[in-house]
Amino acid sequence: MAKADSNKADTLKPRLPRGFVDRREDEIAAQHRMLETIRRSFELYGFEALETPFVEYTEALGKFLPDLDRPNEGVFSFQDDDESWLSLRYDLTAPLARHVAEHFDAIPKPYRSFRAGYVFRNEKPGPGRFRQFMQFDADIVGAGSVAADAEICMLMADTLEKLGLTGQYVVKVNNRKVLDGLMESIGLSGPDKAGQRLTVLRAIDKLDRLGDAGVRELLGAGRKDESGDFTKGAGLADEAIGRVLAFTGWTGTGSAPADNATTLSNFEASLAGSAIGLEGVRELADMAALFAAAGYEDRIRIDPSVVRGLEYYTGPVYEAELTFPVTNEDGQTVRFGSVSGGGRYDGLVGRFRSEPVPATGFSIGVSRLFSALQLVKSPLLEGTAKPGPVVVLVLDRENIAEYQRLVSSLREAGIRAELYLGGSGMKAQMKYADRRGSPCAIIQGSNEREAGEVQIKDLIEGAKAAAAITSNAEWKAARPAQFSVPVAEMVERVWDVLETHFPGSRPEASAERN
Amino acid sequence: MAKADSNKADTLKPRLPRGFVDRREDEIAAQHRMLETIRRSFELYGFEALETPFVEYTEALGKFLPDLDRPNEGVFSFQDDDESWLSLRYDLTAPLARHVAEHFDAIPKPYRSFRAGYVFRNEKPGPGRFRQFMQFDADIVGAGSVAADAEICMLMADTLEKLGLTGQYVVKVNNRKVLDGLMESIGLSGPDKAGQRLTVLRAIDKLDRLGDAGVRELLGAGRKDESGDFTKGAGLADEAIGRVLAFTGWTGTGSAPADNATTLSNFEASLAGSAIGLEGVRELADMAALFAAAGYEDRIRIDPSVVRGLEYYTGPVYEAELTFPVTNEDGQTVRFGSVSGGGRYDGLVGRFRSEPVPATGFSIGVSRLFSALQLVKSPLLEGTAKPGPVVVLVLDRENIAEYQRLVSSLREAGIRAELYLGGSGMKAQMKYADRRGSPCAIIQGSNEREAGEVQIKDLIEGAKAAAAITSNAEWKAARPAQFSVPVAEMVERVWDVLETHFPGSRPEASAERN
Repeated sequence: MAKADSNKADTLKPRLPRGFVDRREDEIAAQHRMLETIRRSFELYGFEALETPFVEYTEALGKFLPDLDRPNEGVFSFQDDDESWLSLRYDLTAPLARHVAEHFDAIPKPYRSFRAGYVFRNEKPGPGRFRQFMQFDADIVGAGSVAADAEICMLMADTLEKLGLTGQYVVKVNNRKVLDGLMESIGLSGPDKAGQRLTVLRAIDKLDRLGDAGVRELLGAGRKDESGDFTKGAGLADEAIGRVLAFTGWTGTGSAPADNATTLSNFEASLAGSAIGLEGVRELADMAALFAAAGYEDRIRIDPSVVRGLEYYTGPVYEAELTFPVTNEDGQTVRFGSVSGGGRYDGLVGRFRSEPVPATGFSIGVSRLFSALQLVKSPLLEGTAKPGPVVVLVLDRENIAEYQRLVSSLREAGIRAELYLGGSGMKAQMKYADRRGSPCAIIQGSNEREAGEVQIKDLIEGAKAAAAITSNAEWKAARPAQFSVPVAEMVERVWDVLETHFPGSRPEASAERN
Repeated sequence: MAKADSNKADTLKPRLPRGFVDRREDEIAAQHRMLETIRRSFELYGFEALETPFVEYTEALGKFLPDLDRPNEGVFSFQDDDESWLSLRYDLTAPLARHVAEHFDAIPKPYRSFRAGYVFRNEKPGPGRFRQFMQFDADIVGAGSVAADAEICMLMADTLEKLGLTGQYVVKVNNRKVLDGLMESIGLSGPDKAGQRLTVLRAIDKLDRLGDAGVRELLGAGRKDESGDFTKGAGLADEAIGRVLAFTGWTGTGSAPADNATTLSNFEASLAGSAIGLEGVRELADMAALFAAAGYEDRIRIDPSVVRGLEYYTGPVYEAELTFPVTNEDGQTVRFGSVSGGGRYDGLVGRFRSEPVPATGFSIGVSRLFSALQLVKSPLLEGTAKPGPVVVLVLDRENIAEYQRLVSSLREAGIRAELYLGGSGMKAQMKYADRRGSPCAIIQGSNEREAGEVQIKDLIEGAKAAAAITSNAEWKAARPAQFSVPVAEMVERVWDVLETHFPGSRPEASAERN
């Protein structure tokens, strides 16, 4: 019954842990419109919603098993009362795998699922790097055919189209089997070569930025960059380097091959000796045929430089890159880059079952995509400007029930309205209405009350008029955009004001006000 | 590059920790409609959206400071890399207080905010008790007047109206100051009487269920219930018991007073000696006047039995009760009960500042309200039945690019459609389409392909026809609800099928398909 801890009130600092943020009205509304566009796109492709909780058994998340010394490495973890480890979800893929395995027989397969929600990383936050951030995923579980991977890539492309990014993106596709085949063909198979493989893959990943000359150095002895820093290379022999560059199609050309057919024939020639590599090439060829048949060949491109980091991918991998230029922190002009990626992960559901279960899917980085839409000034984020509430001012507190009645009649008509609830005078009340973006204020002093009237002050019109008026006296004489009406007409006249500034506000003109 | 942990695949059990649940398509969609109705109601009252993260500094949450032995008592807690304690939020009120204190000068006050989101309790889960559940809150910060509390109560009532619960609820209001005054008047002030106060408040809380006779026992020596279990009483003297019952207005009447005026005069008479108590009565009288002026007096009632548990309330407290009957686990018929509650908490924001900041607000238990709407078979939860995807069957895999083209043309027209991506035969594909709720399937064998046609099988009409057909031979002869059309007409004929079963599907008839 006592007030809470008043003696420590002075010392407690209001703050959020690093890497976590609050979001207010405008950002929530704009992001909501983006998310709804994505959702409708996913639904058009036959996907359906699934929601899993924020907490899972740590072991269900896969490689992030905590040990007793470092229970929080990468994930946020805590122990349940039976001592088992729980974690906040790290992505939306592991929970999907757990859900499908748990309800395997009840789910019609192939199962097309989408999920949107926050995920958590116990990592060092930085600019644009949060410890809580949103992903929007779509996955197909139970389809082994690469037609499923092709669907996902086309969904990725169509979703970006619907977000208004036509001509500003490319979906890039590669295949883990092709990369495995390449490693085999240059003698880098086996667990003891893992480090060297990683160096080669990282070099390939840099083709876009460094071109074939830079990557050639990284595949060989190493490379010194403009600042003089030296990066040790993979130490490949010339023959192997030539093979890797021939595979990429960049050798001597200074840029990636123009079409899928050329890329595929480069792959085929380079991987002639590798069964797994050629299987990957066949899969990519099947996907390319589907893209061509459905008219996506200019937007979905086979690209040897796509090397997705996650260990669990087993086949096609893909990512969507936004191609418009931005300036990076070093002042260089670069492409905006990846906003979404994914691939085939046939082993993940199988961790819970005695049989492998094929699956493929992708994840959109919601914050990053939102930043991109802000950069291109997407009309989607503007939406329809929503009016603030009509504010009924309180001029004499003993008549507050009267003012409340005015508010109620506005609300009953469907007009967003509120009673001023603070303790301040008229000037502060008007300032409050301005800050809330109110279209108009309702004012009733004793004169108006006796006459059965209210004054309506059009704040949007008033602000325009104020810009043209220079003196206080002139203002008081003119009282622009302020007029008296009988109480019985208040609702209609407020609709007039709303309709002037927000056409379509009146219920007759719009079935659903929102 | 290797498949993940295949050697432990057989042992890992797919399961969720107790008290956490998955939610699928239908429930997500139904709950979304309920939440949107609540959101629109809150917006009409001038409230605006705020979103805070799931993680806060534990100290910001108030009374749940972990000690080293029990860091997880009540909340889920974990240590940051600088050793400070973090917790999953326990409610949406403490994060609001933190947010307002952190951005105090930037926020126009009174600040009307709403928030919807999951909160977490590290407690023993049970039937209907989850460790992750959703709340939907509305609060006004910076308004000390009880007109703000009245606004919140009216918002509660109007929101239940908009959810279709007219005549099936009552909003009950009390005031902590009145209860404090009552304790003072029977000599139970001071910290040493805390236990006895709690026993008295718990007894008052049971008026609805036990009536005045039962509560009289609980205020005195104690009460033996039907099963023979004895509950020790508060041990009050007869005079004090009489005073408490006179306060409640139940004495000798067997039920609560019918109107706010009678309740208020009972309060006033019982609390004559207590300054704090009479202040509370005046506040309730002011609120009652506002309810009457705005036409809420039948739906918002002053009720002495409202005793909200949270320590931090400082003035008016209120809850919304659904009054329709349900059968409880003991087979008794009872009211559905509380779905929402709140009160004034002037000390909570003040923990972060050197001045008190008045605030009042309430919280809807989303799952509980959702259960209530299910019980009354609310049409809101049905919404518009949404068609499943049109499924294009795959009869010969070498022509998959052709099938993909059919899917693309349906999607381009805005029709939810998908390619069957599994490896099964025609019969299994039809079964899949059925389970997905598909309105129709598209079938193209070699004969149709040569003729430039597709077959459209209307699955909804087909299911009705199937019920009337008895033999397999009859079925094959009739092939009900299945017809051939030229490929160029497919989209239009599919729209016909959709329009038959889901009127308004065609874009001309509905601006926004959803």
